Amino acid sequence: MGFWLNEKHTGGYSVNWKFTETLYTTNTDYQQLAIINTVEFGKALVLDGIIQTTEYDEFIYHEMISHPAMITHPNPKKVLVIGGGDGGTIREVIKHPSVEQADLVEIDEKVIWACREYLPEISCALNEQRVRIFVEDGLKFVKQKKEYYDVVLVDSSDPIGPAVGLFGEEFYRDVYDVLKEDGLMVAQTESPLFNKQLLRDVNKVMSDIFPVTRTYLTAIATYIGGFWSFTTGSKTYDPVLVEPDETLINGMELKYYNIDVHKACFVLPNFVMELFK
Amino acid sequence: MGFWLNEKHTGGYSVNWKFTETLYTTNTDYQQLAIINTVEFGKALVLDGIIQTTEYDEFIYHEMISHPAMITHPNPKKVLVIGGGDGGTIREVIKHPSVEQADLVEIDEKVIWACREYLPEISCALNEQRVRIFVEDGLKFVKQKKEYYDVVLVDSSDPIGPAVGLFGEEFYRDVYDVLKEDGLMVAQTESPLFNKQLLRDVNKVMSDIFPVTRTYLTAIATYIGGFWSFTTGSKTYDPVLVEPDETLINGMELKYYNIDVHKACFVLPNFVMELFK
Repeated sequence: MGFWLNEKHTGGYSVNWKFTETLYTTNTDYQQLAIINTVEFGKALVLDGIIQTTEYDEFIYHEMISHPAMITHPNPKKVLVIGGGDGGTIREVIKHPSVEQADLVEIDEKVIWACREYLPEISCALNEQRVRIFVEDGLKFVKQKKEYYDVVLVDSSDPIGPAVGLFGEEFYRDVYDVLKEDGLMVAQTESPLFNKQLLRDVNKVMSDIFPVTRTYLTAIATYIGGFWSFTTGSKTYDPVLVEPDETLINGMELKYYNIDVHKACFVLPNFVMELFK
Repeated sequence: MGFWLNEKHTGGYSVNWKFTETLYTTNTDYQQLAIINTVEFGKALVLDGIIQTTEYDEFIYHEMISHPAMITHPNPKKVLVIGGGDGGTIREVIKHPSVEQADLVEIDEKVIWACREYLPEISCALNEQRVRIFVEDGLKFVKQKKEYYDVVLVDSSDPIGPAVGLFGEEFYRDVYDVLKEDGLMVAQTESPLFNKQLLRDVNKVMSDIFPVTRTYLTAIATYIGGFWSFTTGSKTYDPVLVEPDETLINGMELKYYNIDVHKACFVLPNFVMELFK
């Protein structure tokens, strides 16, 4: 039997994932949602026909959206994750013992429900006492508080559909305001080869708002384009200059991030540096 | 009009590239060869249905297979490239002014011919005076000389078809012998997520043969699996400890590699280090 998901990324590039079964599928108020069991990468969350996360390589994305900022801040107590209803980012955030409160704001409660039900290894931390879940629009949520969070992580899907506003200037200004005076934010900013205009734009906008802006790289097999970028905007601490706390890092169970990765991920190849000139 | 190349990578994963025309197609003595014009990444060399190199992102692969080793050796004069009939690796090698002789050994002369004809930006250096081209089997070629080259770069296709032997122990021992007493080699060693057993095996075999073995990473959009690995075996110099020659690097026109990239590329995430334990 051969079921195939055809992910249409651009007009000229698509990817096919063989899967053995659809465990769940529904149309939510915001998007088409499916949980499938892929042959290569295990169970996967699919939104609007694009795989968001898989059991096999989710650790790369979730560790890399979280730990560089969490380690940069010397004492992150209140953390906000916007999007990320699968719970993987929250799972990484609460590995940090300093965290007293980790808030998740996900617009689509069916994402949370489906991941709780079918992807427990990713969503496991959503039931933790320190975690609060808000089913709300992240764009509105960040307007409700001022100088409240130490770290904000924007764990959005691609800049189409419900996530468009999460790549806009107004949103980043609101995130700036919701951060404490020494807070910092991270946003996933797509592939520097397939989506270089977006990365350039976000880096520019964040640079206008935050005293410190840094783009860093990893590579996630599930996402196309080789490298994957994240961009961090910080009010005080520079993640490149900070000396990572080795004891803290060694005390966490991590499959990707380590003290040397922290330093190396901010090194950019020439073609990425060129984007920001 | 919609022409599509379907690249079958594994039983459960394939990639589709839209293209506007086939510029050239033939069955050589070794493989099916095509030059196509892709919508996303420009002209591409296709061997046995898998894209080997594209105009758009070839610089990442070709710079990263060459410069880490070329910079590690303090004075590389004689360099051997095995495979790499497209000429991209040779193009990078001869950017180093110390190089007196750059030999290319490609088994399939039609690859050289097609790339000269259709991919001049990649093959341009093949006509350089310092370059000698041998249409031969690399496995046999390295048995003909002893302690001759400073650097050997194994620019092979995937470990199926004509390239299988280029991932074997006997070949690496022959490369050891063809290197001068302070020489070093690099091999492309595939994706650490999709092909981790191969990377593990090559790292192990090279570690048995060479005093210094290092795996390093980049990410190439054309190749699947997020990260792409290279493994270097060295008789004397450790690429991690060497202080890259900044003047030399700044004097070359490079779109990817720089002095910080040299240091950062050898930093491995935990899951890759785990493979070598």
